[in-house]
Amino acid sequence: MATDIRIALDAMGGDNGLAVVMPAASIALERRPDIRFLLYGDRKAIAPYLAADPRLAARAEVFHTDVAVKMTDKPSQALRAGRRVSSMWQAIEAVKTGKADCAISAGNTGALMAMAKFCLHTMAAIDRPAIAALWPTVRGESIVLDVGATIGGDEQHLVDLAVMGAAMARIVFDIDSPTVGLLNVGTEEIKGVEEVKAAGRLLREARLPNMTYRGFVEGDDLGQGVVDVFVTEGFTGNIALKTAEGTARQLGQYMRDAFGHSLMSRIGFLFARKAIAALRERMAPRAHGGVFLGLDGVVIKAHGGADAESYAGAVELGYDMVRQELLAKIREMIAHASDGRPAAASQAIDT
Amino acid sequence: MATDIRIALDAMGGDNGLAVVMPAASIALERRPDIRFLLYGDRKAIAPYLAADPRLAARAEVFHTDVAVKMTDKPSQALRAGRRVSSMWQAIEAVKTGKADCAISAGNTGALMAMAKFCLHTMAAIDRPAIAALWPTVRGESIVLDVGATIGGDEQHLVDLAVMGAAMARIVFDIDSPTVGLLNVGTEEIKGVEEVKAAGRLLREARLPNMTYRGFVEGDDLGQGVVDVFVTEGFTGNIALKTAEGTARQLGQYMRDAFGHSLMSRIGFLFARKAIAALRERMAPRAHGGVFLGLDGVVIKAHGGADAESYAGAVELGYDMVRQELLAKIREMIAHASDGRPAAASQAIDT
Repeated sequence: MATDIRIALDAMGGDNGLAVVMPAASIALERRPDIRFLLYGDRKAIAPYLAADPRLAARAEVFHTDVAVKMTDKPSQALRAGRRVSSMWQAIEAVKTGKADCAISAGNTGALMAMAKFCLHTMAAIDRPAIAALWPTVRGESIVLDVGATIGGDEQHLVDLAVMGAAMARIVFDIDSPTVGLLNVGTEEIKGVEEVKAAGRLLREARLPNMTYRGFVEGDDLGQGVVDVFVTEGFTGNIALKTAEGTARQLGQYMRDAFGHSLMSRIGFLFARKAIAALRERMAPRAHGGVFLGLDGVVIKAHGGADAESYAGAVELGYDMVRQELLAKIREMIAHASDGRPAAASQAIDT
Repeated sequence: MATDIRIALDAMGGDNGLAVVMPAASIALERRPDIRFLLYGDRKAIAPYLAADPRLAARAEVFHTDVAVKMTDKPSQALRAGRRVSSMWQAIEAVKTGKADCAISAGNTGALMAMAKFCLHTMAAIDRPAIAALWPTVRGESIVLDVGATIGGDEQHLVDLAVMGAAMARIVFDIDSPTVGLLNVGTEEIKGVEEVKAAGRLLREARLPNMTYRGFVEGDDLGQGVVDVFVTEGFTGNIALKTAEGTARQLGQYMRDAFGHSLMSRIGFLFARKAIAALRERMAPRAHGGVFLGLDGVVIKAHGGADAESYAGAVELGYDMVRQELLAKIREMIAHASDGRPAAASQAIDT
């Protein structure tokens, strides 16, 4: 039997703290019985949850702290006030010291990334980390990165994002060679910013194993899920993510208006209630938060407003990343990408 | 009485050509009887439309050409093959020579911008043009620019975009001092790319007349319409626009699925049909295309798939831009912005 997966939880993170984290741990444990939890938070507040759930209690160890990073803290403030002492820091540090295989937090994203970078550092050969989001599409889900860890970046950074996204996609979608597209303002080779064009050339010529590079994709391809992995730097990726979330919210408001309009449509609404509930669930902002990529350790950001079910999804995502060896996959693919470059150049001359 | 507004129509542009352009001209003329049309296209094909509509015939002059820019032409191809001879070029050239006050085309956006730049040039003090879109929001509409004319740009370019967008907003929304926001990845002063931060400082310090600078805004503020004018460079703007369009289409697909699911929801759908029709109309990709800004002439891009009503909307938008003197407003505001800079700097020292 495989070894247990040890997951460190920032039990104080998120809008709802323990009220979400503890039931989520319980749900995740039911589905993945080989998880062991390291819980970072207020021992007294955690105790009643464990008393009520002996199965979870048997698989959990509590590490007391009462210092929480606030959702409104700036990353620099969080680092200053929360380093070493906060639940967020300690969960990350458990990964650093090898006590845990992965850390999960629903807390402040900027603070979590700042602490994770500071504590874990980036992997060898990766200069800058990224946040990868699972984006709901009409086909299911795609991975979009970077949604806001790193602003700007050259072609090498974009190639690194492609490699890391593909490594994650192999695990999440259980496929050998995920399709990868570079987000651009048109699909022709001549369009876009220089870095994106240069990254496109590198990816086309390198023909890396375990990914199928599909060229440029556009903003309206995201919702259609035309590739498994959408690659862009963090400024554009963050604005695209928030624009999509905002549009979904906007259309939800339209929908409420539309159905509240007349007696007929209110009657229609009663009949269609279940369909609308299903629709609203699919329209909900992506529930699982994001995966931090490029760091020397696995860190998962759960959505700040996550409920127990979606926080459990984030725990399981972390579990899968560890079980399927995300970091080893990234390292191996990055090594290929580095090897590939000179070979690819001579290949280009041949053709 | 004011002089007529002379509008040059690329009668061959768009997915549906004359079948949309001619009824649209008729609709616009009904609402703005002081338009005169210059129609660039195939005289024989136009003739039956004019024969059937004497009122329009009395206000229209036909300039024959049978060369059309294709929707699939690259801008460089279009310029090579369509310069001087195509309906698109000739409509723009009519603005250049002073025969028309404004040009409208539903044709290929890249070709239209390339020809407009080549023929009209940019205004003095503006280096690079922009395309401004009308973005539907829960409050009505906002202006978003640049949605794809110019890739990248320094802080001065972003300030120019703010000024041009504000000038357009004064006309479209009929307000003295439109609110302006810079699209960024967070609302704090310290976040984002250098150009955006620097543009924020310039706009805050300059306190330009006829605009109210509101600071940074994020992707999810677009659909909420938190400002009248959203400013970003063309790469991010284009991806945001297409992401929103794609999300709306995606949710439309979800909605069809949701309502097709069970007998109950199909019955619900019948009752709610009108509400859903109203909703789908609000979700439709923005109908009016965009306004080209920064050129020495008014050019309006109608949506390629526009119907007669939405093409007529583009004609009326062009009419309003001319009647309310868009170019004069931009020139005056740009002059203020240039004057303002040293004064603003000394002001900053005072405080």
